[in-house]
Amino acid sequence: MTVTAPAGFEAAGIAAGIKRSGALDLAVVVNRGPSQAAAAVFTSNRAKANPILWSQQAIADGVVAAVVLNSGGANCFTGTQGFQVTHGTAEAAASALGASAGDVLVCSTGLIGEQLDGEILEEGVLSAVNRLSADGGADAARAIMTTDTKPKTVVVAGDGWSVGGMAKGAGMLAPGLATMLVVLTTDADLPADALDRALRAATRVTFDRLDSDGCMSTNDQVTLLASGASGVAPDEAAFTEAVTAACRDLALQLQGDAEGASHDIAIEVLGAVTEDDAVEVGRSVARNNLFKAAIFGNDPNWGRVLAAIGTTSAPFDPYLVDVTMNGVRVCHAGGPDRPRDEVDLAPRATHVRIELHAGEASATIWTNDLTHDYVHENSAYAS
Amino acid sequence: MTVTAPAGFEAAGIAAGIKRSGALDLAVVVNRGPSQAAAAVFTSNRAKANPILWSQQAIADGVVAAVVLNSGGANCFTGTQGFQVTHGTAEAAASALGASAGDVLVCSTGLIGEQLDGEILEEGVLSAVNRLSADGGADAARAIMTTDTKPKTVVVAGDGWSVGGMAKGAGMLAPGLATMLVVLTTDADLPADALDRALRAATRVTFDRLDSDGCMSTNDQVTLLASGASGVAPDEAAFTEAVTAACRDLALQLQGDAEGASHDIAIEVLGAVTEDDAVEVGRSVARNNLFKAAIFGNDPNWGRVLAAIGTTSAPFDPYLVDVTMNGVRVCHAGGPDRPRDEVDLAPRATHVRIELHAGEASATIWTNDLTHDYVHENSAYAS
Repeated sequence: MTVTAPAGFEAAGIAAGIKRSGALDLAVVVNRGPSQAAAAVFTSNRAKANPILWSQQAIADGVVAAVVLNSGGANCFTGTQGFQVTHGTAEAAASALGASAGDVLVCSTGLIGEQLDGEILEEGVLSAVNRLSADGGADAARAIMTTDTKPKTVVVAGDGWSVGGMAKGAGMLAPGLATMLVVLTTDADLPADALDRALRAATRVTFDRLDSDGCMSTNDQVTLLASGASGVAPDEAAFTEAVTAACRDLALQLQGDAEGASHDIAIEVLGAVTEDDAVEVGRSVARNNLFKAAIFGNDPNWGRVLAAIGTTSAPFDPYLVDVTMNGVRVCHAGGPDRPRDEVDLAPRATHVRIELHAGEASATIWTNDLTHDYVHENSAYAS
Repeated sequence: MTVTAPAGFEAAGIAAGIKRSGALDLAVVVNRGPSQAAAAVFTSNRAKANPILWSQQAIADGVVAAVVLNSGGANCFTGTQGFQVTHGTAEAAASALGASAGDVLVCSTGLIGEQLDGEILEEGVLSAVNRLSADGGADAARAIMTTDTKPKTVVVAGDGWSVGGMAKGAGMLAPGLATMLVVLTTDADLPADALDRALRAATRVTFDRLDSDGCMSTNDQVTLLASGASGVAPDEAAFTEAVTAACRDLALQLQGDAEGASHDIAIEVLGAVTEDDAVEVGRSVARNNLFKAAIFGNDPNWGRVLAAIGTTSAPFDPYLVDVTMNGVRVCHAGGPDRPRDEVDLAPRATHVRIELHAGEASATIWTNDLTHDYVHENSAYAS
């Protein structure tokens, strides 16, 4: 159980025929209420796919009855014809569910620049709606996979309520979101504005700090649906904490399944003047191809860390910085400290701690290494 | 002949023993005058190597008698001990040449975070000064190579004067300069402030637009030395044009020898509101790993171009953009145009034209693809 763990939700995942392989490719998540409050955040890429353009309008009133998600095609850079396909998808779901099309969000992922077949999608939506069940979460999580090697799901228990979720995305993970589709559900009883605050607070410190390869998708969407079926209206802080825990768990699952990666790297920045500075410093390392290639080669190359952070505008003195890799301080005050060969970078989990000694703020950015498999998958997979 | 092509210059390149391989590793370029006017630009990385910290002080008065360059060690993140090595190098050269140490620039490239042996360097400087000659430019160009596969040199003829140059650098090429060491010489008779204007104008549209892998070095330096030996004081516009031509030629040689690259990509951005916008748009594509991996795979993936430029703040409508790859317009108005398979990406020279239709400004950014060899060289080469 994933998105269907909280009370009030049904889901389905089916093979609609969008993917030629015959794999599951279409999911529907429905909120049976009593409440249909919702919030969503979207890619900050200005080149937004048609489902994003649609869903941004549909979420405006804070009411969502259902989310339709397809893999096998991103419906991005497909013009007015592509927008009509998205619109038709929402209409088909609304009609089958007895809802308004304006209360149906649509998410798409896969190839960009190619048209989706509207008939296949609409037939698929009808078929999925017929198979909705309170056990459908697992199939839904499978149906949104593209190059993911496994489904990503989560459940976080609250006091008489819970948060469930599913995610897809294995490449193009970047700040401001990624080709990352996430649906979170809760049976807590909260209004849309409270959901919006909790979701933005949670994504700011989770998905927005996952920067696998610096590339930002045109199709990212994270949606939070609340059914109110528990009858419990939790404290907003406790609810935000649960949503954040769910998002962090899913973000780390995305990192662990990033295309071609052999290391999951946590870049912890300490001693920054502001949290934004800490994020900028961590992100500059996460986006440095030389650093990422070094980690792939199990090379604790702290010089590349310092060279990367030297490009930022965050206040600090590069010649006061300490760098610790997997517990060994290899750089002290911008110079060599312990020998490189004391560092064991063989494990997939990699921890890089950067102490700026400029202030009290901190942040952690999660990224991956740059590998042969990354190059292979992204030169061979036409997406 | 390279830096020794213009009158008034001598150079040498020797094997000082810094590189264990016994390859050439130390170069000296001397300006015999009558003028010793000079200008230099440096990495904008805030983590600057010791030779940069030294040379920034030494160039302040616009007088340079000699430049000492070594490969085999970057002398970066090596603390006060490292600074003393740079200082000692300048003193040794000054003493041998009868000049002031404050008129000697030092450039270093190679491993960072490791100490250079000051004695080896000082002995090498003396040996190189003893071998200075008006034919020494070719050896000097070889002595500064690291992972370069060939020396990079240029000569541009003016009207009674000329500009010569040499460059090294095969990785970490990025805006604001790279692990790129360049020495330009001229026998034109111009004061330091005119040299400075010409050099900044030239680098702004050449080296600053070369972005091979988005990584900025701690050691970049481009120096222009003027001997005045021709007795000709050229028109400043003509001189700037010649320096720009020399810089562009060297920049394209650097691109052509970038670590592991299999494509030299020119990203031409047209129809921007301002030149800065065009540069930002071009750079966002040049730094997109998914785009770069696609080009490696000979995949004309225009969707990744649009996804990359959608992350910029430049004013344009993504749904008005045209993209042409090697002469085939694959994207028109943000949607599919000619079929992908009409594009031939087999040649190393790759041309991507992006028409924004937002204004009249343009710029070209040069980059390379992301290849298995890039990952291999940068995971195996500990620098």
